[in-house]
Amino acid sequence: MTDANSDELYAVADFCLIPMGTGAVSVAAEIAECQRILSNGYGTNIEGPWSAVSKAIHDCHAAVHAHGAPRIATDIRIGTRVDRETAPGTGNDHKVRRVQEILQQDNAA
Amino acid sequence: MTDANSDELYAVADFCLIPMGTGAVSVAAEIAECQRILSNGYGTNIEGPWSAVSKAIHDCHAAVHAHGAPRIATDIRIGTRVDRETAPGTGNDHKVRRVQEILQQDNAA
Amino acid sequence: MTDANSDELYAVADFCLIPMGTGAVSVAAEIAECQRILSNGYGTNIEGPWSAVSKAIHDCHAAVHAHGAPRIATDIRIGTRVDRETAPGTGNDHKVRRVQEILQQDNAA
Amino acid sequence: MTDANSDELYAVADFCLIPMGTGAVSVAAEIAECQRILSNGYGTNIEGPWSAVSKAIHDCHAAVHAHGAPRIATDIRIGTRVDRETAPGTGNDHKVRRVQEILQQDNAA
Repeated sequence: MTDANSDELYAVADFCLIPMGTGAVSVAAEIAECQRILSNGYGTNIEGPWSAVSKAIHDCHAAVHAHGAPRIATDIRIGTRVDRETAPGTGNDHKVRRVQEILQQDNAA
Repeated sequence: MTDANSDELYAVADFCLIPMGTGAVSVAAEIAECQRILSNGYGTNIEGPWSAVSKAIHDCHAAVHAHGAPRIATDIRIGTRVDRETAPGTGNDHKVRRVQEILQQDNAA
Repeated sequence: MTDANSDELYAVADFCLIPMGTGAVSVAAEIAECQRILSNGYGTNIEGPWSAVSKAIHDCHAAVHAHGAPRIATDIRIGTRVDRETAPGTGNDHKVRRVQEILQQDNAA
Repeated sequence: MTDANSDELYAVADFCLIPMGTGAVSVAAEIAECQRILSNGYGTNIEGPWSAVSKAIHDCHAAVHAHGAPRIATDIRIGTRVDRETAPGTGNDHKVRRVQEILQQDNAA
């Protein structure tokens, strides 16, 4: 899934992965498996070049299948923008910060 | 949207609300508007009786429409369970904690 | 979950329901259970007053829990708009038709 | 985004793409743009090797950005399974057919 195309979009995503058919009610073990792959401490938020983000989620699926789940359903929310540069690794943080700034203006007013 | 039905399910949810047709690229103002309604400091995580969770998201839509958005698209991830009681307000925390415990066992091993 | 509030928004939604912890790989039986409740032949598209849409999905959860699933995760995409009236039951159809019209103009050109 | 890895998972997906910051309320033009890329007549259902599915959605984003949207938010539901082979192009159809079979058994009973 490497991509030599310089026009690849930068993506900010979060995803929710649901193993199916395991008979286990808790999915904490499977989520932990994904966190080991992502190893960024931010749970299921992930960002980077689109194909890298996609590959990371694919590899979570592969890991959770290897962990015993015959079937997996994942919901991915993914965003791209071309109006400004997103400094690598700051997309999710930036969104949170902007909201906090607006709420602080409320308190100051 | 009150519900006298004692069989109503307890729901743990998170949602992502996208205002449309505003011509504004940033949605930070709209998200801040929702946070004022939810006022729980947990961003877009929300939990409680199903109808209360649903009503809170509905009221976010109403507030964001009042803020000028002619159209809104929201993605809601909502879960219910009947295998154990969820102590009020602990559903999202519990999920995060279980994953952390498993990862700590990794480090200890 | 009745709502006497005349300001309730009209919602157009579709949802994807995933039973968890059943040990069964196929979810066709559970989806069929939901279709019996919705009984509109449109799979998981649903529209109406917000609280009615929400209650229908809640009742699907209740039916699928009664069918044996200890836990359920659902993804709901729900939209509202205040720029024009949506004639009852036409929201999803309208969206499909608009796209088809645009594509037909392509072919005609 | 080509992938020489024979272990790539086969994915069945559907997605909902929301252009942001265009000032236009209708997204029919943008969806039509995506349909031109996907050209399969099935709206936003798509399936194939994971990286191909991902690339198709990426290319929809690129087309919609080129169409004038500064920002795009997409929700993707994507599933994989390792318990049986999915014949190419049949994943979504198979799911619908299984539900219909169960409902027909209802009617026959």
